[in-house]
Amino acid sequence: MKPLLVTMGDAAGIGPEIIVRAFERGELRDAVVVGDPAVLRRAGAPMTAVIEHPADAVAVPPGSLPVLAPPALPAGLADLPWGRIDALCGAAAARCIEHAVTLVQGGEAAAIVTAPIHKEALAAAGVPYPGHTEMLQALAAEPGAAPPPVRMMLASDELRVVLVTIHLALRRAIDAVTFDAVLQTLRIAHRAAAAWGQQRPRIAVAGLNPHAGEGGLFGDEELRIIGPAVRAAAAEGIDASGPFAPDTVFMRARRAPGHAGEFDVVVAMTHDHGLIPVKYLGVEHGVNVTLGLPFVRTSPDHGTAFDIAGRGLADPASLIAALDMARRLARAA
Amino acid sequence: MKPLLVTMGDAAGIGPEIIVRAFERGELRDAVVVGDPAVLRRAGAPMTAVIEHPADAVAVPPGSLPVLAPPALPAGLADLPWGRIDALCGAAAARCIEHAVTLVQGGEAAAIVTAPIHKEALAAAGVPYPGHTEMLQALAAEPGAAPPPVRMMLASDELRVVLVTIHLALRRAIDAVTFDAVLQTLRIAHRAAAAWGQQRPRIAVAGLNPHAGEGGLFGDEELRIIGPAVRAAAAEGIDASGPFAPDTVFMRARRAPGHAGEFDVVVAMTHDHGLIPVKYLGVEHGVNVTLGLPFVRTSPDHGTAFDIAGRGLADPASLIAALDMARRLARAA
Repeated sequence: MKPLLVTMGDAAGIGPEIIVRAFERGELRDAVVVGDPAVLRRAGAPMTAVIEHPADAVAVPPGSLPVLAPPALPAGLADLPWGRIDALCGAAAARCIEHAVTLVQGGEAAAIVTAPIHKEALAAAGVPYPGHTEMLQALAAEPGAAPPPVRMMLASDELRVVLVTIHLALRRAIDAVTFDAVLQTLRIAHRAAAAWGQQRPRIAVAGLNPHAGEGGLFGDEELRIIGPAVRAAAAEGIDASGPFAPDTVFMRARRAPGHAGEFDVVVAMTHDHGLIPVKYLGVEHGVNVTLGLPFVRTSPDHGTAFDIAGRGLADPASLIAALDMARRLARAA
Repeated sequence: MKPLLVTMGDAAGIGPEIIVRAFERGELRDAVVVGDPAVLRRAGAPMTAVIEHPADAVAVPPGSLPVLAPPALPAGLADLPWGRIDALCGAAAARCIEHAVTLVQGGEAAAIVTAPIHKEALAAAGVPYPGHTEMLQALAAEPGAAPPPVRMMLASDELRVVLVTIHLALRRAIDAVTFDAVLQTLRIAHRAAAAWGQQRPRIAVAGLNPHAGEGGLFGDEELRIIGPAVRAAAAEGIDASGPFAPDTVFMRARRAPGHAGEFDVVVAMTHDHGLIPVKYLGVEHGVNVTLGLPFVRTSPDHGTAFDIAGRGLADPASLIAALDMARRLARAA
């Protein structure tokens, strides 16, 4: 398999540290970092080996972290303080992502694993995307074509959740729950499951309102929008059911010892309906996967953690889980 | 301690069965059922002893379930089919609740534990409340005075959540998140904690929007409403903090082996933000507590389960947990 690419993320956050911790544990054996060698050395990398192409990683001596520095990376990143929003860090993080997309689209890498970026640093750098998902979607668009529809999936050992809406105010998220958005999400979730070995995953759809609207008493989106989209998906051969009461559907889907799980994936209408249960038992093993892109992309299920950056406290577990997931998905692709 | 009162709930649901199962396990040793003796016998009670006052329960022979039949209870309940909405069942459930409130307000009982009722059966009977919480609140009002502000708390072994809004469409719930509603919830949660032995509980407040609004990028309710209410509560001496990102605050508050829990209670803005994490590990040990009433009231964390009523499948675990919680709260009161 071709190498995985790991983008460095925000240089002032915990991204560089968790990359170095994962490298020390042998978890980057088939990966190349896209980033700034000086930033990675500041984060604890004993040696870095700057390479030009992902395939050159095999020639890097053991103990050296292979790094691809994207063209036009801002200078001086390693001199900036830890844990502070800085436009330079935002610009550098964006450059790494752009370069990684170019490499994976050009067939030089198997997948992209992204370390955390900071939304306000991106905004300070004038990068017009609120996060990775939106940026990757724009970068993946064919020239002159609309960007591909993508969805965010969060997966832990117990639960997979695909979100209809993500980074929107809750009021606006409700407006964004349309028939097309729900049906599109069901199609994307259905197709994506082939990558983890399921041709016809059992997809549960969570409602938007308490008790999934209780027959229209507490809101009618389930009757007007979500129910019809579930039935349209079922008519296409997708094993979709619901809408179910949000407060119990995640419990029902949970796979754990003694608890088989009634569903393979849950589609949630809002960011927090979906992420609260995935994160409840700890973010260490949660992985974020962008579904619908023409390449595999995963990331850890946490942010830049500015409050602990540079202090040697950051846990690489979620990054390691994201690397594992990227390998599995890239093999199946 | 005076006896606990257990209201029978909807006669066609699993309420009577789980009461009889709990009795068989010795869990009603200090409790009296408010209900219809014939319904309880149909649900499996070998013998019932009809009493006039809760204090008479001590004279009931072992093996007999002490039952208080409220005046004007409809006849023929035990002849109605299981698992069907019926106005008679709704009317009977309401009568039991009213009578239990009269007894506990009159000082004859220590607390009320309510078995599940069915909203549509209540409505069919012309009872103008969508659920227990609203009905108990109205019954608890002093003559001529406004009903006391109450809030729903869901508690498991790991997590306590108090809700600002409950049975409203999500759009309307957002409108109901006001400064006064959040501050009132914080006051009620703060006062309630004395009952479980904490004079100054650490209360975390979950935001409404993804990432708690990310500084206003994804909604401004945190800046305009929730943050100011948290600061107002703190100024009154309440240990309130937040608003925090909804997707991680419940994980942070979780108490489990190896996970101390950063907070004692989480205040959530919506029904499902709060109930998804409480129910995620299973509803068996979840207990619903109404905070703000002049008496203790708990209930199991599930509904009438019409699909399995009368089939001997219902699990009394959540009712038993509700009895335990009622005992603890009544002792502390």
